[in-house]
Amino acid sequence: MRRSQLFIKTRKEAPADEEAKNAQLLIRAGFVHKEMAGVYTFLPMGLKVLEHINDVIREEMDGIGGQELRLTSLQDPEIWKETGRWSDEAVDVWFKTKLKNQTEVGLGWTQEEPLVRAVRPFVNSYKDLPFLAYQIQTKFRNEIRVKSGVMRGREFLMKDMYSFARTQQEHEELYEKIKQAYFRVFQRLGIGDKTFLTFASGGAFSKYSHEFQTVTDAGEDTILLDRGKGIAINEEVYDDESVAQTGVDKDKLEKVKAAEVGNIFTLRDKYSTPLGLKFTAEDGQEHPVLMGCYGIGPSRLVGVITELLADDKGLVWPERVAPYKVYLAGIGDDEEVRRSADEVYDYLTENGVTVLYDDRDERPGEKFADADLFGIPFRLVVSRKSLEAGGLELKKRTADATEIVVKNQLTQVLGSPGQD
Amino acid sequence: MRRSQLFIKTRKEAPADEEAKNAQLLIRAGFVHKEMAGVYTFLPMGLKVLEHINDVIREEMDGIGGQELRLTSLQDPEIWKETGRWSDEAVDVWFKTKLKNQTEVGLGWTQEEPLVRAVRPFVNSYKDLPFLAYQIQTKFRNEIRVKSGVMRGREFLMKDMYSFARTQQEHEELYEKIKQAYFRVFQRLGIGDKTFLTFASGGAFSKYSHEFQTVTDAGEDTILLDRGKGIAINEEVYDDESVAQTGVDKDKLEKVKAAEVGNIFTLRDKYSTPLGLKFTAEDGQEHPVLMGCYGIGPSRLVGVITELLADDKGLVWPERVAPYKVYLAGIGDDEEVRRSADEVYDYLTENGVTVLYDDRDERPGEKFADADLFGIPFRLVVSRKSLEAGGLELKKRTADATEIVVKNQLTQVLGSPGQD
Repeated sequence: MRRSQLFIKTRKEAPADEEAKNAQLLIRAGFVHKEMAGVYTFLPMGLKVLEHINDVIREEMDGIGGQELRLTSLQDPEIWKETGRWSDEAVDVWFKTKLKNQTEVGLGWTQEEPLVRAVRPFVNSYKDLPFLAYQIQTKFRNEIRVKSGVMRGREFLMKDMYSFARTQQEHEELYEKIKQAYFRVFQRLGIGDKTFLTFASGGAFSKYSHEFQTVTDAGEDTILLDRGKGIAINEEVYDDESVAQTGVDKDKLEKVKAAEVGNIFTLRDKYSTPLGLKFTAEDGQEHPVLMGCYGIGPSRLVGVITELLADDKGLVWPERVAPYKVYLAGIGDDEEVRRSADEVYDYLTENGVTVLYDDRDERPGEKFADADLFGIPFRLVVSRKSLEAGGLELKKRTADATEIVVKNQLTQVLGSPGQD
Repeated sequence: MRRSQLFIKTRKEAPADEEAKNAQLLIRAGFVHKEMAGVYTFLPMGLKVLEHINDVIREEMDGIGGQELRLTSLQDPEIWKETGRWSDEAVDVWFKTKLKNQTEVGLGWTQEEPLVRAVRPFVNSYKDLPFLAYQIQTKFRNEIRVKSGVMRGREFLMKDMYSFARTQQEHEELYEKIKQAYFRVFQRLGIGDKTFLTFASGGAFSKYSHEFQTVTDAGEDTILLDRGKGIAINEEVYDDESVAQTGVDKDKLEKVKAAEVGNIFTLRDKYSTPLGLKFTAEDGQEHPVLMGCYGIGPSRLVGVITELLADDKGLVWPERVAPYKVYLAGIGDDEEVRRSADEVYDYLTENGVTVLYDDRDERPGEKFADADLFGIPFRLVVSRKSLEAGGLELKKRTADATEIVVKNQLTQVLGSPGQD
């Protein structure tokens, strides 16, 4: 992409009405636009980051046999009344609206009920199980306060997977497989070393659920972390019992702020029994299907990665999620420099490397500041000086040192296009 | 994908409450699930078709320089009040809901207003123009009646592109470029020969707009079509003037039902003037930006393709949008047949051909009926008989004839994986 074609611009100042560091930086860099509190438009480069996160999640969910579908946002009250989750007393984050005939409908804030109803016609026998279904879809939650930028929204993207099993043992095997896939997702997104499996409150059917908590001061949760064991306990369930259960070393626990980036839940038959999702086992007996649910927030992850990795110059993206791999700039009013930069742009593009090419007539300082603010992993500069030194000047976003590389070595130096 | 892992099943009977042929077939085949009237969940194979349609649209929009972004569904009333489109009197398809503090918000049914506000900070000078921005996003419209299956929904997917130009001539050039991209989209989706550029009512600033109408009895529009010239006039603007203007041959016009699959509009400064989207030209004067908007309905296209191509055995998908390219079935209770079928499955998968492998213990008739109902372009059968004849039996979904092919020729016979 040529920078002169890209319609966004950067700003020097953060918007006055935005408290969260992630939203301040993402708006300054032109990655997102705030529509209302907790409601953000993803502009072209922000959308690229979001979709790269979705790609990683999708690969890992498909890799363990997940089948992707897409439920709807408009929600039929009938199915929610059957589980007692329609009333505003039971669930305080509903957005509700009305059809022309005055029938009330809701906007999906989670999707157990409609999913169970959608898969029910396909489940009769033990032969129809187990399976995993998931979606990456917009959720709506009518939160009273939102002040964490894209980390907590009234409208946000969520990957929600649901497991359907015949026996407790089969459920536990699926649960473990998904847990491992979650570790791989966070590792590949560049936040694996700061993200910890955390014991949290479990709801009706299990003492604990598992959260994946990323350590950051911008987080809304507090966890007690045993860094050596790589396990944490959410403050809300911290007591002698949870310490004993999780096997953490009580003397080594650190109390830190963290952001929940994923959670996995055992649901047992909480939804399948009231909604009639059952199967006939090999012995001819009917049993309820045993379910689990598994969430990750891709739009929240855009915020968490920003909070965790950004520095005083701007955003910093891990390679796998960066909007482009290379920020290419020609410096100076020199025909040879321009021709060389054009050649490098064509060469990289043909070799599958994504490049944002700053072909504007701007001062070097402006171009460098933008390259840093955008957080693009590699900066490549063509100038009279670099050409005299034999090539291009390469700088990593996270390093101060520069080196001279020749064009034909570039793809080797930059690594393969699809690497994590 | 192994059929035994896929959680959906086909049904023999169409649902009693569904009038539209497209929804009847899509539900029978397990491609969609009806949540409410006009609100459909896309199950795994339906989502694949939808995403393949999106891929084609995205390639063509990116190919002409479109920059993808994603606006939000929740809509701030303030920006809509500025153009007079907030009130239910002005716009009768709004869904509205309330934040906890009782502020009313809407659900996006189109997005000119928020898009203009989002791009406004980036447009000052003639140097910032022109550009094309687009999204593929869920729209909500509170329709009184919906009876056309996925062809008209209360919640549906829409690709909406917007052009931003400096002069009328520049606008017209962009408009023409997008029009040509639309022709390519419908050609690649397999409905090009039934889809015609149609003159329709133009709104405030141009006498006519252009619709792309696909001839089908399931359509809600009536057009007067000059098949020889490949141009039509929507009944709503048919008169001597439109006949003269479009140059159709009045004596050759056919009156046919058609479904609108795309529309393109000149907006001039209808939104840019009230919303203050202006630029300083080279002469130092301020001008409003000249806009156009360009829609395609991907979820509607799923329905239109179904209506147009399905036959009495079920769905028929063009290769580019089919959920899988090949339906592979082993027939008979024979170890060699099973081993051969497994080998073919592995071979095709490794060669990038998408395969739905019916590995179930079912009668041949059941398997063949499902292959037809799903509408998968190629059916491959391995049986004792086919092995004795030297290979596999290949049948196209749209042909009656079968032929015997050997495994190593398969990729050649089936064509390259990505071809249109």
